[in-house]
Amino acid sequence: MKDWQALAAQLRVDSIRCTTEAGSGHPTSCMSAADLMAVLLTKYLRYDWANPRHPNNDRLIFSKGHACPLLYSMFKAAGVITDAELLSLRKFGSRLQGHPNPRVMPYVDVATGSLGQGLPIGVGMALNGKYLDKLPYRTWVLLGDSEMAEGSIWEAFDKASYYKLGQLISILDMNRLGQRGETDLGWNSAVYAARARAFGWHAIELDGHDLGAIDSAYGEALAPKDQPTCLIARTEKGHGVSSVANKEHWHGKVFNPEQAKAAIAELGGERSLIIQTSKPEALEPAVTSAARPLTLPVYEVGGKEATRKAYGDALVAVGANRPEVVALDSEVSNSTFAEEFKNAFPDRFFEMFIAEQQLVTAAVGLSALGKRVFASTFAAFFTRAYDQVRMAAVSNAAIHLVGSHCGVSIGADGPSQMGLEDLAMMRGVCGSTVLYPCDPNQTARLVHEMVDLPGISYLRTTREKTPVIYAPGEPFPVGGSRLVRHSDRDQVAVIAAGITVHEALKAYEVLKSEGITVRVIDAYSVKPIDRETLHGAARDTLGKLVVVEDHWFEGGLGDAVLDAFADTRVDGIRVIKLAVRDMPGSGTPAQLMDAAGIDADHLMQAVKSLL
Amino acid sequence: MKDWQALAAQLRVDSIRCTTEAGSGHPTSCMSAADLMAVLLTKYLRYDWANPRHPNNDRLIFSKGHACPLLYSMFKAAGVITDAELLSLRKFGSRLQGHPNPRVMPYVDVATGSLGQGLPIGVGMALNGKYLDKLPYRTWVLLGDSEMAEGSIWEAFDKASYYKLGQLISILDMNRLGQRGETDLGWNSAVYAARARAFGWHAIELDGHDLGAIDSAYGEALAPKDQPTCLIARTEKGHGVSSVANKEHWHGKVFNPEQAKAAIAELGGERSLIIQTSKPEALEPAVTSAARPLTLPVYEVGGKEATRKAYGDALVAVGANRPEVVALDSEVSNSTFAEEFKNAFPDRFFEMFIAEQQLVTAAVGLSALGKRVFASTFAAFFTRAYDQVRMAAVSNAAIHLVGSHCGVSIGADGPSQMGLEDLAMMRGVCGSTVLYPCDPNQTARLVHEMVDLPGISYLRTTREKTPVIYAPGEPFPVGGSRLVRHSDRDQVAVIAAGITVHEALKAYEVLKSEGITVRVIDAYSVKPIDRETLHGAARDTLGKLVVVEDHWFEGGLGDAVLDAFADTRVDGIRVIKLAVRDMPGSGTPAQLMDAAGIDADHLMQAVKSLL
Repeated sequence: MKDWQALAAQLRVDSIRCTTEAGSGHPTSCMSAADLMAVLLTKYLRYDWANPRHPNNDRLIFSKGHACPLLYSMFKAAGVITDAELLSLRKFGSRLQGHPNPRVMPYVDVATGSLGQGLPIGVGMALNGKYLDKLPYRTWVLLGDSEMAEGSIWEAFDKASYYKLGQLISILDMNRLGQRGETDLGWNSAVYAARARAFGWHAIELDGHDLGAIDSAYGEALAPKDQPTCLIARTEKGHGVSSVANKEHWHGKVFNPEQAKAAIAELGGERSLIIQTSKPEALEPAVTSAARPLTLPVYEVGGKEATRKAYGDALVAVGANRPEVVALDSEVSNSTFAEEFKNAFPDRFFEMFIAEQQLVTAAVGLSALGKRVFASTFAAFFTRAYDQVRMAAVSNAAIHLVGSHCGVSIGADGPSQMGLEDLAMMRGVCGSTVLYPCDPNQTARLVHEMVDLPGISYLRTTREKTPVIYAPGEPFPVGGSRLVRHSDRDQVAVIAAGITVHEALKAYEVLKSEGITVRVIDAYSVKPIDRETLHGAARDTLGKLVVVEDHWFEGGLGDAVLDAFADTRVDGIRVIKLAVRDMPGSGTPAQLMDAAGIDADHLMQAVKSLL
Repeated sequence: MKDWQALAAQLRVDSIRCTTEAGSGHPTSCMSAADLMAVLLTKYLRYDWANPRHPNNDRLIFSKGHACPLLYSMFKAAGVITDAELLSLRKFGSRLQGHPNPRVMPYVDVATGSLGQGLPIGVGMALNGKYLDKLPYRTWVLLGDSEMAEGSIWEAFDKASYYKLGQLISILDMNRLGQRGETDLGWNSAVYAARARAFGWHAIELDGHDLGAIDSAYGEALAPKDQPTCLIARTEKGHGVSSVANKEHWHGKVFNPEQAKAAIAELGGERSLIIQTSKPEALEPAVTSAARPLTLPVYEVGGKEATRKAYGDALVAVGANRPEVVALDSEVSNSTFAEEFKNAFPDRFFEMFIAEQQLVTAAVGLSALGKRVFASTFAAFFTRAYDQVRMAAVSNAAIHLVGSHCGVSIGADGPSQMGLEDLAMMRGVCGSTVLYPCDPNQTARLVHEMVDLPGISYLRTTREKTPVIYAPGEPFPVGGSRLVRHSDRDQVAVIAAGITVHEALKAYEVLKSEGITVRVIDAYSVKPIDRETLHGAARDTLGKLVVVEDHWFEGGLGDAVLDAFADTRVDGIRVIKLAVRDMPGSGTPAQLMDAAGIDADHLMQAVKSLL
């Protein structure tokens, strides 16, 4: 226990030293959790530092990401970063960013810093251990008390007990003080415990600075059970330094050099203890079913099928071919057609119920451990998890999101169910890929393309059945487009994607009968967009382009097309953007597309206005 | 009680009739709650149908918005819509959309249909009653059991008890069945009750088809207390019709005409009961403090101040002038500077803690009852509530969102804290206004402009102190821009906003010394953008434009500028977009702006490349 004390003091001292050196950071938020982490690192964590990707390593997530100086101090105590590197905290180019980031730091699995996301990600990691890899590793999550106000935390509490994640242990650092004052529950440990228990968890209240109590609590947490465990540790922010302990106005504030000197002295000075962490048992993930050859579904040209149905069909095919493919859905699998995968591979499907934040974060947790995860819901409802998508991009997670029921063409359900901002939202994610097929064979190919894409990839599917226009097996590379109709005397080029491709084809026929030839471009790859084909169209039509999309005017395909002309001189270009500008109501798909001005009739008018 | 039975049967019959007529909808989700609503409408709801805006009306929100045929059937039973209108459900142009929408239906206060939002909005309405208007109206919220999996519900449970909202009553229609099967808790009423109690609510378990039990439960809910109440009503989906009651695969499915006929017969046939609802007491909202003359803060040209600080200062001024202004913040009021308003008007400030979804929905609830609400957090964290912002736009709510700490220029905290997609996100909201000031005097004017804006308005503020470049009192109309530097021989126009205006000014000086004259446009109104000024710049510079922004490449100011040239022929235009393309790390603001290529040096290179 003396060693623990010394290590805890070292972690506090190092958290102070590096934040003072950086001139910013959250030392007092580290100090409250130092005892909890000292015992964890010394006795309980099983981690092979030489192999951070070891499949049976315990996982440790700082859901309160702003306490990462403590995490980095643990890395120093584990001997994997030097003291000099510790002092590079928050400097440009350092691996020690202001919040943990796996892009640069191999001992960090996922980025945190937006509160309330670490535990939900941990649920994904624990799902992987229990149901997929079948390994005994534990997922430890350090929670702040401020973030207990985030709904995403309670989505995670709910799912963790539903899935009986006994190897998931959260450690609530209940230091009472948030950024600007007391949290809504303060030190009301009993209320946290009651909430955790009501959500099906085993809860343990303890003094988070009593090393013996911490030891007992971890021991109790590890007793085999079908419940996740939450330690509710009463702590003091800034504990160990009398001038700041349990004081307001010390959030996100560093000690000045003089204050740091006094604090370090009070903590017994600098130390350089190195801890030998236990290694995990040398176990490998459970053997999965063998990969079968890829047999994508085929749809007869001239028939009709919804792209959302093709998504379900294709996911089954890709799942047979790639045993690491996992699917998640938020209680709408019979609408998104993820249920086909569920029926084919029930062991690799997880129902997330109506909890879209958990949907995306579980995908992040699973993907961090090597799974290829497809997560589906209505396109509109991914807006519920935009922060989680954003943070997944910070993590550099490879996740595959599939949004159905896009646009006004869903019809009678009305605007609350219409995904009309999803292209804008997903384009605005660093390194994302955004795909929007118009045909089931194309959808199947794109689902297969997606599985190996890095970063955030998004597929937009349509509710209505639409004509099959492409033969099975035609290639649709990411970044490409398709000239659906073209000639060497095209007067105007129409750029469409998804359902509007079919409107464009209707317009093409009518215009052709009137002696007007238009080029029809299927821009199924919205990001990256096919600049070359668009530039060619602008050249050939002397700059006459019409873009038509079932999406708001801002941020969607129209903006992607205009972006393709940024930084290029184009003479006389004129782009007409047809998109949804006013709030739709209920009606038939045809009525709503007409009202929005994105159907064949409006397209023809736009084309003629350019002649 | 016999009347209640008859009314409940009528509500079921009418829900069946209108959905069968529409050919889509959720009749069985209506039937489970019909008994609960029959008793409410007949005995408990106090509502002046002739005056839906009566300040003391009870409020009724269908959080399970897909059950709106039941709500519309209640409107018919109240005598405010005809049977013929009822049968227009989901038709194009009907006021009876597929989900409730206040844009068209005066008896609906807020749009629902994205689950888990009705209760959080109800929290806002109940806050208004208890703390602002000080009126005894009650806020009733009908909850579905599937939506209890949404974290946003638990944010609302937490805030409702924290604020002791005794006049808030939620009615959980626990019909066990979600869209594709059983909910995660099924009929486990005790677990729902334990969760509600752990979150500080009074919980009552009951049989939701026992009219006497329903009556007692409402009575108990209305007993004066400092706690909100949750009725947990065990119900059957499709109750009353034996062929569908408690059966799977009947979600979102209508009776065909023959099935409808049989079901209506089983329910005793069609009825046309008209209910006299109790009217509210004729009370008026509490008298607020008198409006004081507007005195916006002033900042000396040549000094330095952060626009986020100016937001706080201006909000105090606007709050003094407009007693209906209310402010909310998510535990970062000392960073957003909303704390200045809190200090000046503690009675009109509500701390939402770290619960951004609740932040936005509380604003929607307050605004539905006439308040002018400013809600602030870090720009990055509004991504957590994008669905709520989207739905607020469906509601046509006027809310004012203020995001601080935008862009890479925040520095050392790293990418998790950087708002880099907020312009894209907020532009992609129907009818939104997006403002991005670069100077504190400009900020103050824009905050004042915002207060009367309809729809969703968003103000983006900057962490760093920046130079004061505009004199106090200069006008900055929405939709305008400012020529900061211009001459009649400008070779290139630089379009900037926020912090990049200052980079543009640095570039201007250097380029001028090299004999290159550039126009500098401050595009503080990102949406609507000032097309006229941009077109003028394109004409004057022969199409040479550079846009520079501290935001991702997609969806932000650059796309707004390109959009300004959609549908216009412009010869030889060339727009260079400088924006953030790769994931930033930690560092100083200057290092990160350099790395992103959006500082003065990169700007100068871009300008020169156009010459």
